[in-house]
Amino acid sequence: MTLSATERRVPERDLGPLFSPNAVAVIGASNDQTKWGNWISVQALRMRQRRPVYLINRRGEPVLGERAYRSMAELPQRADLAVIAVPAAGFESAVEDALAAGARAIVGITAGFAELGIEGEARQKALARRVREAGAVLLGPNCLGVLDSGSELYLSSNPLPPGPVGLISQSGNMALELSRILAERGLGFSRFASLGNQADLTVADLIRAYTVHPETKLIAVYSEDFGDGRDFVGAAAEATTMGKPVVLLTVGASEASVRGAKSHTGALVSDSSVIDAACRAAGIDRVASPRQMASLLEALHLFGAAPARRVAVLADGGGHASVACDLAERYGLSVPEFDSELSRRLRDHLTPSAGVGNPVDLAGMGERDVTSFARVLGDLLDAPDTDSVLITGYFGGYGEYSAALATSEIETAAEMGELVRDRCKPVAVHTMYPYSDAAEELQRRGVPVFRAIEEAARSLGMLARRTPADPALRPLPDPLPPVADDGYWSARELIRAAGVHFPAARLVTTVDEAVKAAREIGGRVVVKALGLLHKSDSGGVALGLEGDSAVGTAVADMAERLSPPGYCVEAMADPRDGVELIVGVRRDPRFGPVTMLGLGGVTTEVLRDVAFALAPLTPGQARELLGRLRSAALLHGVRGRPAVDLDALAHTIAVITEVAAAHPEISELEVNPLLATPRGCQGLDARIVLG
Amino acid sequence: MTLSATERRVPERDLGPLFSPNAVAVIGASNDQTKWGNWISVQALRMRQRRPVYLINRRGEPVLGERAYRSMAELPQRADLAVIAVPAAGFESAVEDALAAGARAIVGITAGFAELGIEGEARQKALARRVREAGAVLLGPNCLGVLDSGSELYLSSNPLPPGPVGLISQSGNMALELSRILAERGLGFSRFASLGNQADLTVADLIRAYTVHPETKLIAVYSEDFGDGRDFVGAAAEATTMGKPVVLLTVGASEASVRGAKSHTGALVSDSSVIDAACRAAGIDRVASPRQMASLLEALHLFGAAPARRVAVLADGGGHASVACDLAERYGLSVPEFDSELSRRLRDHLTPSAGVGNPVDLAGMGERDVTSFARVLGDLLDAPDTDSVLITGYFGGYGEYSAALATSEIETAAEMGELVRDRCKPVAVHTMYPYSDAAEELQRRGVPVFRAIEEAARSLGMLARRTPADPALRPLPDPLPPVADDGYWSARELIRAAGVHFPAARLVTTVDEAVKAAREIGGRVVVKALGLLHKSDSGGVALGLEGDSAVGTAVADMAERLSPPGYCVEAMADPRDGVELIVGVRRDPRFGPVTMLGLGGVTTEVLRDVAFALAPLTPGQARELLGRLRSAALLHGVRGRPAVDLDALAHTIAVITEVAAAHPEISELEVNPLLATPRGCQGLDARIVLG
Repeated sequence: MTLSATERRVPERDLGPLFSPNAVAVIGASNDQTKWGNWISVQALRMRQRRPVYLINRRGEPVLGERAYRSMAELPQRADLAVIAVPAAGFESAVEDALAAGARAIVGITAGFAELGIEGEARQKALARRVREAGAVLLGPNCLGVLDSGSELYLSSNPLPPGPVGLISQSGNMALELSRILAERGLGFSRFASLGNQADLTVADLIRAYTVHPETKLIAVYSEDFGDGRDFVGAAAEATTMGKPVVLLTVGASEASVRGAKSHTGALVSDSSVIDAACRAAGIDRVASPRQMASLLEALHLFGAAPARRVAVLADGGGHASVACDLAERYGLSVPEFDSELSRRLRDHLTPSAGVGNPVDLAGMGERDVTSFARVLGDLLDAPDTDSVLITGYFGGYGEYSAALATSEIETAAEMGELVRDRCKPVAVHTMYPYSDAAEELQRRGVPVFRAIEEAARSLGMLARRTPADPALRPLPDPLPPVADDGYWSARELIRAAGVHFPAARLVTTVDEAVKAAREIGGRVVVKALGLLHKSDSGGVALGLEGDSAVGTAVADMAERLSPPGYCVEAMADPRDGVELIVGVRRDPRFGPVTMLGLGGVTTEVLRDVAFALAPLTPGQARELLGRLRSAALLHGVRGRPAVDLDALAHTIAVITEVAAAHPEISELEVNPLLATPRGCQGLDARIVLG
Repeated sequence: MTLSATERRVPERDLGPLFSPNAVAVIGASNDQTKWGNWISVQALRMRQRRPVYLINRRGEPVLGERAYRSMAELPQRADLAVIAVPAAGFESAVEDALAAGARAIVGITAGFAELGIEGEARQKALARRVREAGAVLLGPNCLGVLDSGSELYLSSNPLPPGPVGLISQSGNMALELSRILAERGLGFSRFASLGNQADLTVADLIRAYTVHPETKLIAVYSEDFGDGRDFVGAAAEATTMGKPVVLLTVGASEASVRGAKSHTGALVSDSSVIDAACRAAGIDRVASPRQMASLLEALHLFGAAPARRVAVLADGGGHASVACDLAERYGLSVPEFDSELSRRLRDHLTPSAGVGNPVDLAGMGERDVTSFARVLGDLLDAPDTDSVLITGYFGGYGEYSAALATSEIETAAEMGELVRDRCKPVAVHTMYPYSDAAEELQRRGVPVFRAIEEAARSLGMLARRTPADPALRPLPDPLPPVADDGYWSARELIRAAGVHFPAARLVTTVDEAVKAAREIGGRVVVKALGLLHKSDSGGVALGLEGDSAVGTAVADMAERLSPPGYCVEAMADPRDGVELIVGVRRDPRFGPVTMLGLGGVTTEVLRDVAFALAPLTPGQARELLGRLRSAALLHGVRGRPAVDLDALAHTIAVITEVAAAHPEISELEVNPLLATPRGCQGLDARIVLG
């Protein structure tokens, strides 16, 4: 992320030749139906009415009954785009051929580089350099193709239906599954780009291209490898800020998925909580499966950024009503009680046995008059305290009673569709009869219908959970002069110099100096032996020493046992009224410095109550991150204890994250404990790890 | 739960006349197609080849072209079963008519009692008494019918497919939805009983009847109202212990669902964590939706109690492999690495680019040779460290490539079915092509196929999470003589007398007595003012007093501010090396005494790290409950602290729960804090609430 979201508004690379080429050459075109060179050729020939398509193979033998050329140099015209599906050994020369013939975009289908290890890496780097020097772009290699519905570019192994979703995927099957689910719901793709190994074009480049592509309304990403993670975050933040949601399916929540990903594309999957932090920063919606992705894309397509949290539940049976409420809360929605005015209005057109609170239970009203669904839905959508409506149960099945009821049910479905379109509030319908005419009418009119109540509830829950990109997201600061010493005193001084308070301290080397330092500091002191990786564990820390003899004995003892190069004598902090925190920054190989925050001791170590965010943080961001700890209440004072000084704490955390962000040579920086009290806060210990 | 699971092996009530009657009378039979009396009659007439069905209504007018009688007295024979679907006002007289004519089972369809409030309650109680006096049973009222596939009894509004599931439901629509989902998967019902208001027959009675019903292999319950919760737990524990799983869908996780349930049947939904505790005690599998219920029933039907936790993932693409691993772990499975022997065997029949660890990634092998799915599945099922297999991706879609591949794919599906049946290990398949011939072949052969990877993973996860009924489940002890005083001293003495250690203490009323008591006790003391509901909050506790004057001043001060009737002077406990716990027992209106356990202070109050179990507990059960706390590690010693005496702690908790269980007059009993140390434990404060 070299520029902030507001600074950069255009793609860095020109992807016009990739998505809307004047002509296409398929290098490695084949008649062998088990080969990519065959599948791609079949798809490519579909677009000949739009643009010339040239097939190329070594022998120049006809493919699929079409003339084939021996090289791009033979073509009757320059072609913007070359698709290369030759064996790995011939890939570089095919690229040279294409560049020499004036190609400005290359789609590298050829696979086999990741399997070559370091050699494959080097070859891909060289290729990317070569392509960039020529002013061209390379998608892949090891990619499955590219597609643009608007420009009628079909270069993937399967046709995909057109629609508003721009898809970027590292997995062909994942793209295919998503397309099958979306197609069931009447949705499809504006663009599809298979990422492959991202030797040149990265997921970030493609997000930027989709962001300014008018036909792309929603961006869907399946990726295991984020390349430069900050660049990815920056590109995604730009997209979401400009109103294009980015929905991400990725892996890495389990060790096994990392094993799987490694055997797939050689990608290094980042730790899942770091990815979550990146998603929060960029306003990305993260999902866990293709079906969740499709469901959220559909909801975003239909309802945009409308709020959804406060849901009204509408059921035609008490069981479904209650189960829906439980699931709604499980997926993060709230099911608030209605105001009495709304309940009265509902009572007017329902039977006495109906439930007119939230949930609404039609209790048999459906059989009697199925149009009551539309009337009740209208009332619920009109209620100012209702963000969304979850309908569950039998709707779609009433038509089985009689022909008259069937007609009435379909008309009601149409009316419900009108209401939803008019009121612009999210609605999700679960029905036991998802394949009924009425259910299909709902779906056709833009009311999502689900076979399972949990899917319907989750669809609204995912909308409710969305958060915008962090407006305070900042680029990494310019690096400060690097530190060379990773010792305790050096870490402490680095962080103290930036403005974090620490207790008074003196650096000493002898017993006498230690005693003198303790006298100058006054009160009870702590002595820490220097030069040890784990001071406490090796007996290199003595707490609460008071008086010359105590200090002297402690230092002499450490000298004998540990022979440290020196000692730090510090004032002993008063932990009363204080809460201990751990504030750390770890440099992630993809996403750069990441802050970890936790309340010290039990909650962090035993209960794993920690929160992550991309560093550096502003004080405002630090405060927000503190609020995400389950144990945050401890900072506000519990059991009659006073609240800590949150302003000072947030400021201190921000400073610590800035220090770490400005020192790329530091791989880990930690203040632990950081003592937060009602009167400010101070670091009691610090540590850095270099390299 | 008056008898333990091992003591009682037969149903208490004879439900033969209900499920297998000699003849059936439908009272309230009607030609009006909007009425239950019509729907039930239509269904009832389906079973005339099996047994006589008599239709009855007030005027004796023909119904559905059949003769109708005016009352049961007119019938040509005695009928075991009377179904009553008359308006509420005439319900009692219809029951009297039926009993007088010798009916031994009554199905009360009639609704409207819950809406009558106290009067409805009283009428239902009287009815139940009357029916029992006559040696009969009553299902309902407000019930939707009963069905027995084996005895061909069809008395519900809709036909239900036959199968191994015995269903007990308080919601008609929920039963209908479950039946629709199960039917898709080739499953159906041995019995169905709609619970209604449980005036006489309860969910527990029906579970007991299903437990000894040979055709019922699995018991499915949707209930909002558990009646006597201990009886329900006892019946369910008996069923699960005898090898009949009980799968429960209930509500109450949200406030809104309780609102919904109240408007439904007047049921009081119990707190969700109490229901969880009941489920654990009884070995019940709790699910959150009809779809989850169907999925678990299917898995249990196919795989029984086979373990499932260690799953092997088999995919034909890296993306699906990784997503499946993440979801498997999310649903509680583990995806362990394979041993090298298994990987070598897999390598033998896969391509070099395939992943042969866990997950297995066929990486294109499917297109080349789809039979590799069966070979790999065989290897995975044979691996001793693999409990289950999760297959995800494209299987079912290969048939689209060619007719030969389509045939091969279906044959492979059949072979996979054979393997699964032979090896008896749970397998779940997700495919992008769930409606393909190969997928249908799998399903037909007993390999469950899912449209969504998360559904497949959850299906195995639910199997893995199962736990058997608690073998130490005990009946409530006989009540001890009730306590009448709910004061602090009384609570303390009650618990102390049962064997829980408390610090030395004296009950005093004056300053002089307090000073004397403190001298006798020695060391630092605590003074607590008696007769206050919240001692600490009102300044009625003084800690760490040492010396006559400190004790005297504290007592004099309390006397002036609070005028308490007396004081308790106690030795001050040494909290070093100790962990404070809260041990409480609350009497739930349905499930009786329920233990709540938490580590004191932060983890209980802020992080809500608490665990629940039905009381009383044995020391073994107490230890198991402690282990369920997220913060349990604190008891074993962290950061160099010693472990507490777990034996003493478990014993103490058991004693506390026994005291509470033996005193039904106590609605809440709490020892808080209970100080656990390496040298045993003692209560530092205690409280009881009566009534």
